[in-house]
Amino acid sequence: MKTLLLMSGGLDSTVALFDLLADGHDVRGLGVHYGQRHSRELEAAKEIAEFAEVPFEITDLSNLKYFLTGNSQTGDLPVPEGHYTEDSMKQTVVPNRNMIMLSVAIGYAVSMKFNAVAYAAHAGDHVIYPDCRPEFVEAMKQAAALCDWHKIDLITPFLNSSKAEIVKRGDQLKIPFELTWSCYKGEDFHCGKCGTCVERKEAFQLANVKDPTLYSNFSEKFFKAVNL
Amino acid sequence: MKTLLLMSGGLDSTVALFDLLADGHDVRGLGVHYGQRHSRELEAAKEIAEFAEVPFEITDLSNLKYFLTGNSQTGDLPVPEGHYTEDSMKQTVVPNRNMIMLSVAIGYAVSMKFNAVAYAAHAGDHVIYPDCRPEFVEAMKQAAALCDWHKIDLITPFLNSSKAEIVKRGDQLKIPFELTWSCYKGEDFHCGKCGTCVERKEAFQLANVKDPTLYSNFSEKFFKAVNL
Repeated sequence: MKTLLLMSGGLDSTVALFDLLADGHDVRGLGVHYGQRHSRELEAAKEIAEFAEVPFEITDLSNLKYFLTGNSQTGDLPVPEGHYTEDSMKQTVVPNRNMIMLSVAIGYAVSMKFNAVAYAAHAGDHVIYPDCRPEFVEAMKQAAALCDWHKIDLITPFLNSSKAEIVKRGDQLKIPFELTWSCYKGEDFHCGKCGTCVERKEAFQLANVKDPTLYSNFSEKFFKAVNL
Repeated sequence: MKTLLLMSGGLDSTVALFDLLADGHDVRGLGVHYGQRHSRELEAAKEIAEFAEVPFEITDLSNLKYFLTGNSQTGDLPVPEGHYTEDSMKQTVVPNRNMIMLSVAIGYAVSMKFNAVAYAAHAGDHVIYPDCRPEFVEAMKQAAALCDWHKIDLITPFLNSSKAEIVKRGDQLKIPFELTWSCYKGEDFHCGKCGTCVERKEAFQLANVKDPTLYSNFSEKFFKAVNL
């Protein structure tokens, strides 16, 4: 089965990549530059695809940042810090991001006569991200099956999994967690403070899996240790 | 009602613009550059929006042409001439074009807290363009209502109208037909030979409305008449 996977360089889509490969899918990766502040994540996606020896491309739709406004990731709002609250998290929602990325992936999959498009929406996202909910996925499945005479299936391996369960699955598959990127700030190291970093840390703790992430307080500690 | 209309510069979306305005919608236009050969149409859309005194923007997603291949409009295939046959017409289908344009429009509409997105799919397109069929529109309506906490309605005023009926409606509304652009070749004048030009001519004939289009044989006739 030829499957085009939306890869963000994050934990979820990286575990999805190795999960699909383990299931025998012939996977190709697609990254979408939609003008996100943390486009650093796409470099991570490229490295992960190289590690997995899977073809990977990025489509540059960065002009979208002028149209998807009023949020912290493509708009002018600051990235909220601390544990997610409903309000702070809503600030990070890029309007209709998933439909846009899926529509491009589906178009590309039709062009290549692939069988499916996959994306790593997960249960932990349902409360905040409307475009990760099962009912949204169901509508998109219908649309993907109808948009062309060549039918594309939509696969969401983690729709009912928590982030901790995804980390556990990644641990079983021995995935290179250290290559993945979650932080919404997109600086040199994971900030360790934004909502996504807090969630990432928590997922490793709950899964009881060693977290190899270099958070930015690591660099402070390191420079202190070597007296710089 | 604040409505964002996908404007291609063609007949259908132009009549839709004046139809929505007549219905009291507060309309804003959006053009999408998806790498189409006939991007000339977007200049037409801009002129039409100026004529109607409606705000209009173009989002540049022309990088998509590298991903939406195997067709005559964003790929390498030639534009087919003559009356549409099923095969020749399928050659012009840009994979998943409408879902891509709708997803961007919906994201922008959410950003602006608009009520609806409109596009001018019509009954004549159902046979060839899968992403103009009522069942596709239904799936997209669902997806548009679910993709964000701010619900967006999807409006398709001509879903059950023929192109001739659209021309009739345009005539009633006294729309500037001469500003619209249909030709898939995207040269200086309408070629008069490609499938879209043939359909355009036919629609005016069937509607019994004078066709003000300058087809390229016009220029031959003109230069002959003035002895150039």
